[in-house]
Amino acid sequence: MSNAGTERHEYQEIKVTLERILLRYGFSDSRAELCSRLFTETNLDGIYSHGLNRFPLFIEFIKKGIILPAGEPSLILAENNFERWDGNRGPGNLNAWFCMDRAIKLAGENGSGIVSLRNTNHWLRGGTYGLQAARQNCIGICMTNTKPNMPPWGGREARIGNNPFIISVPYEPYPVLLDMAMSQFSYGKMEILSQQGEKLPHNGGFNSRFELTDDPGQILRSELALPMGYWKGSGLAVLMDILVAVLSEGLTTAEIGKLEEETALSQLFIALDLDRFSTQQTAGRIIRTVLDSVTGCQPVQPGQEVFYPGKQTWLRRMENERSGIPVASDTWQRILKL
Amino acid sequence: MSNAGTERHEYQEIKVTLERILLRYGFSDSRAELCSRLFTETNLDGIYSHGLNRFPLFIEFIKKGIILPAGEPSLILAENNFERWDGNRGPGNLNAWFCMDRAIKLAGENGSGIVSLRNTNHWLRGGTYGLQAARQNCIGICMTNTKPNMPPWGGREARIGNNPFIISVPYEPYPVLLDMAMSQFSYGKMEILSQQGEKLPHNGGFNSRFELTDDPGQILRSELALPMGYWKGSGLAVLMDILVAVLSEGLTTAEIGKLEEETALSQLFIALDLDRFSTQQTAGRIIRTVLDSVTGCQPVQPGQEVFYPGKQTWLRRMENERSGIPVASDTWQRILKL
Repeated sequence: MSNAGTERHEYQEIKVTLERILLRYGFSDSRAELCSRLFTETNLDGIYSHGLNRFPLFIEFIKKGIILPAGEPSLILAENNFERWDGNRGPGNLNAWFCMDRAIKLAGENGSGIVSLRNTNHWLRGGTYGLQAARQNCIGICMTNTKPNMPPWGGREARIGNNPFIISVPYEPYPVLLDMAMSQFSYGKMEILSQQGEKLPHNGGFNSRFELTDDPGQILRSELALPMGYWKGSGLAVLMDILVAVLSEGLTTAEIGKLEEETALSQLFIALDLDRFSTQQTAGRIIRTVLDSVTGCQPVQPGQEVFYPGKQTWLRRMENERSGIPVASDTWQRILKL
Repeated sequence: MSNAGTERHEYQEIKVTLERILLRYGFSDSRAELCSRLFTETNLDGIYSHGLNRFPLFIEFIKKGIILPAGEPSLILAENNFERWDGNRGPGNLNAWFCMDRAIKLAGENGSGIVSLRNTNHWLRGGTYGLQAARQNCIGICMTNTKPNMPPWGGREARIGNNPFIISVPYEPYPVLLDMAMSQFSYGKMEILSQQGEKLPHNGGFNSRFELTDDPGQILRSELALPMGYWKGSGLAVLMDILVAVLSEGLTTAEIGKLEEETALSQLFIALDLDRFSTQQTAGRIIRTVLDSVTGCQPVQPGQEVFYPGKQTWLRRMENERSGIPVASDTWQRILKL
């Protein structure tokens, strides 16, 4: 993202701008601070699809009463290393941050911590909570359901969610971080390529005749995105929906689909404290063995690098720390008017 | 599997046949009984790619000293709801069964149980241990690494494993069961289609010029299978390798690749006791909400059914319970000569 419609801003400038807006919408000082930080760091890490671009909609959802700025998690059940929280429709990123923090604390006491959350809102960038765990020396696993936005394999209606799934592992200088939705391509990516008149690099959904297509415009019209790995991503999305809804006793994708807007989501946060399972030296050696083998692989395109999950994010972060954080100009203008 | 080269046998006939052979190879009575049962039930469930067809190779690995029939797990570390075991290169299915049993018992005491296993052998059908958990009213999550058999995304060498991943949920009459490897298609499936001169339904790997292809013969020659969902399955395989190896302090895919045969695998077994997290009634209602939405979806092909993970397995099992268990004739002949 460094084309004509983009400008670069300083971290503090962005964060303070968002903070001022949030304070006007009923956020406490500390909650406005954290919420702004999470939005800003998402663009800092180069995840432009889940950062500032979503801030206007976030405010819109507050105005509509879907996101309740003062909504904080309340404890429903606590047993050993497990806790269940109700998100009371508070801001999704603050609720998720709170629950991963609980999982990390439970992991510090018990080795592992498992925290479920129901009745929450979109968590924005899922990788945020993976990084949160990894920076506390924990393996992090997070999942969420969504509204129905993909057909189950063999079906012609959007009945399953693209349910993001995150796994993170502590590593220096930047954690290993897998952050993926169950759709092969995001609708955001398809919109961008469609506007540019380009095709997807692989089939990414179905046309109106329910045939696979790489034409993003046709998929945007059918609203039938392809699950990653066809039947495999479809199956994983179904199991994730069951896991988050059963463990939180919250809503399923089908039930969320009956609401007017996407809200009341169910989520799961797991942390495993590495220090309780291994020494830093042994765990570090094992992780390095895996990553060295991947990055040492001969690339398909000579001269290119083979990346492990999280490496490209780290490279973007370093560039943005040097050069300023990219923000789409129209997004920035919309934010300044909020 | 009901073509000319297939015959149907009774459950007891198959099980007793395998049992007699295992007793001659140093299995105790009870271990021969369990091992035969797991092989037989895999064919009963219609998972022909991971059942009796692999029994001759299983015996071959015993003869070569790779699988040690008397090798039993020994405890390395126990802390709260976590245990680490060394498989001592015993039979992979017996080791995995033992460890999932430990995870279920830990879940009964603590809500959840996390058991890692290193230095074990191929677990054969991963779904076995998912069903084992679900039949004890536990959610089951299992993962294993393998030898290197896929390129990481962007690479041209087999450096990552197709690392099977299992999630199961208790449900009547048959558990919800996701059992999937990280490759889009198994080498077994590609061999069958190649022999029949057929293409894969979608791209399944790379040809010798590192281009994506749906020609199974070219993929078998390159030995470069495609990760499901391209970069997504590649990333998930990397993270799973880290998880199983770090938590077991066992070998990574890269290290397994340096051995003469595929052995000394690392695995992870997680059980969550549903009774500790919800009532049967509430959990059952939530699971039904998810599955009813999937099966109620309008199918792409009119008149066809949209399945949830595990449903087709259950249908095959019922048919095989009525009609006898299919076994490939050449496999059966090879087994009778062991």
